Amino acid sequence: MRTLRITLAYDGADFHGWQIQPGLRTAQGELEDAFARIVGERVRITGSSRTDAGVHALAQTASLSTECALPCPRLRAALDALTGDDLVPIEVVEAPAGFDARRWADGKTYEYRIRNAPTASPFERRYSWHLRDPLRLDAMRAAARSLAGEHDFSSFRAAGCDARSPIRVMRRLEVHREADTVRIVMEASGFLQGMARIISGTLVDVGRGRMDPDRVRGILDARDRRLAGRTAPPHGLFLVAVHYGETRPTCRDPEPPRTERT
Amino acid sequence: MRTLRITLAYDGADFHGWQIQPGLRTAQGELEDAFARIVGERVRITGSSRTDAGVHALAQTASLSTECALPCPRLRAALDALTGDDLVPIEVVEAPAGFDARRWADGKTYEYRIRNAPTASPFERRYSWHLRDPLRLDAMRAAARSLAGEHDFSSFRAAGCDARSPIRVMRRLEVHREADTVRIVMEASGFLQGMARIISGTLVDVGRGRMDPDRVRGILDARDRRLAGRTAPPHGLFLVAVHYGETRPTCRDPEPPRTERT
Repeated sequence: MRTLRITLAYDGADFHGWQIQPGLRTAQGELEDAFARIVGERVRITGSSRTDAGVHALAQTASLSTECALPCPRLRAALDALTGDDLVPIEVVEAPAGFDARRWADGKTYEYRIRNAPTASPFERRYSWHLRDPLRLDAMRAAARSLAGEHDFSSFRAAGCDARSPIRVMRRLEVHREADTVRIVMEASGFLQGMARIISGTLVDVGRGRMDPDRVRGILDARDRRLAGRTAPPHGLFLVAVHYGETRPTCRDPEPPRTERT
Repeated sequence: MRTLRITLAYDGADFHGWQIQPGLRTAQGELEDAFARIVGERVRITGSSRTDAGVHALAQTASLSTECALPCPRLRAALDALTGDDLVPIEVVEAPAGFDARRWADGKTYEYRIRNAPTASPFERRYSWHLRDPLRLDAMRAAARSLAGEHDFSSFRAAGCDARSPIRVMRRLEVHREADTVRIVMEASGFLQGMARIISGTLVDVGRGRMDPDRVRGILDARDRRLAGRTAPPHGLFLVAVHYGETRPTCRDPEPPRTERT
């Protein structure tokens, strides 16, 4: 039995998110279907992040255990050939026994992209939220500072979220502008359901002058979703990286799984 | 009667090129339909470049004459609202009387984008040609040097091209690499039909080691399309800019039209 780690990119537009759902095209389903065709057995593939419908991934990670003896590069090429053009397995590597892409992750980085310009771009319409009026980045950064660090993020959590604890550590929350693109970079120990998009939507409300940046601290303290801003649309959000700290899954030495769930 | 210049961007994937064709969706048709709905009259809109099906435009220019009195910014917004998301009018400005986006142009810049990496990218699949093996940029640049300057480009001209003269001045022909992206930048006095894609395909043949860079000079001299490389696929090509030299169409002083056809 081998344990493998797959790193994959997908354009979320035509997927109903990561998680398998009967009758709907999902990234997990697409990958499991391709794998089943290659090895003749149905294997459960665990993703590090259950991205929502429409959310993109530059580098989602997934794990699986299999008897299949195909060398990693050939398995990657076969998966690539059997999945749609909008899902690309970037890398398949051997992982330590017991490696679980979800449980072993000790951090993730998401990026939210905004086209902030008077006119739309036909090339960015699928990959950014278009906002015409100039965003006030100083105000967004002030609000972002209130969210950095360890907090109870209940106010930034979607109603259906099933995580046991609402405590997460926001290690990095930055707002950058480069020409017409504003990027909100979020690195945290983990993300509650909807958290990346609710934080982005709240920072955008601040950037538009609809919310005072000083209010964000109070919203956090109130632990009430109704106080935070709107959920930003999914097509601006990218899962950029999944972090595994010292438990490098590319090494062959098995290490004990981390218990933290993200 | 006013003369207007429209600058527009479009994602070429869902257009059968610029030029209007009955029963097919074209960029020119999309724009003329929108204009007709706004002003109640059908007006011919002249594009600077008849881009092929699938070719993109970052800044195509077009001209038209109309009795419509709407201020330029409102006309731009109305066109924007009435065209699909994949075609965006970036700017509408007053042009000198007699301005013709096609005849007055004294140069154009195209860019051909190649993703040159072992794996595809779901985000670049619509906007670049994916080539897995590393391209030899030194060879491509050597070949490009043979094409710079004034030449008879008959060998780099599609069969259906109706231009009267095959002579063009290639002012700039550069090959750049940035991470996994190779860009071929072509600035010329004008482009024959298929020229940008045949040059790109030929440089790629050279970069792949399928053609010696020294052969390009002979291909040029032979004036025989069969000797040049394959036509690169349309989805990697972008019309980047149209140049008008001193005859700035944004100024209001009428100037005589240039006779050069591109």
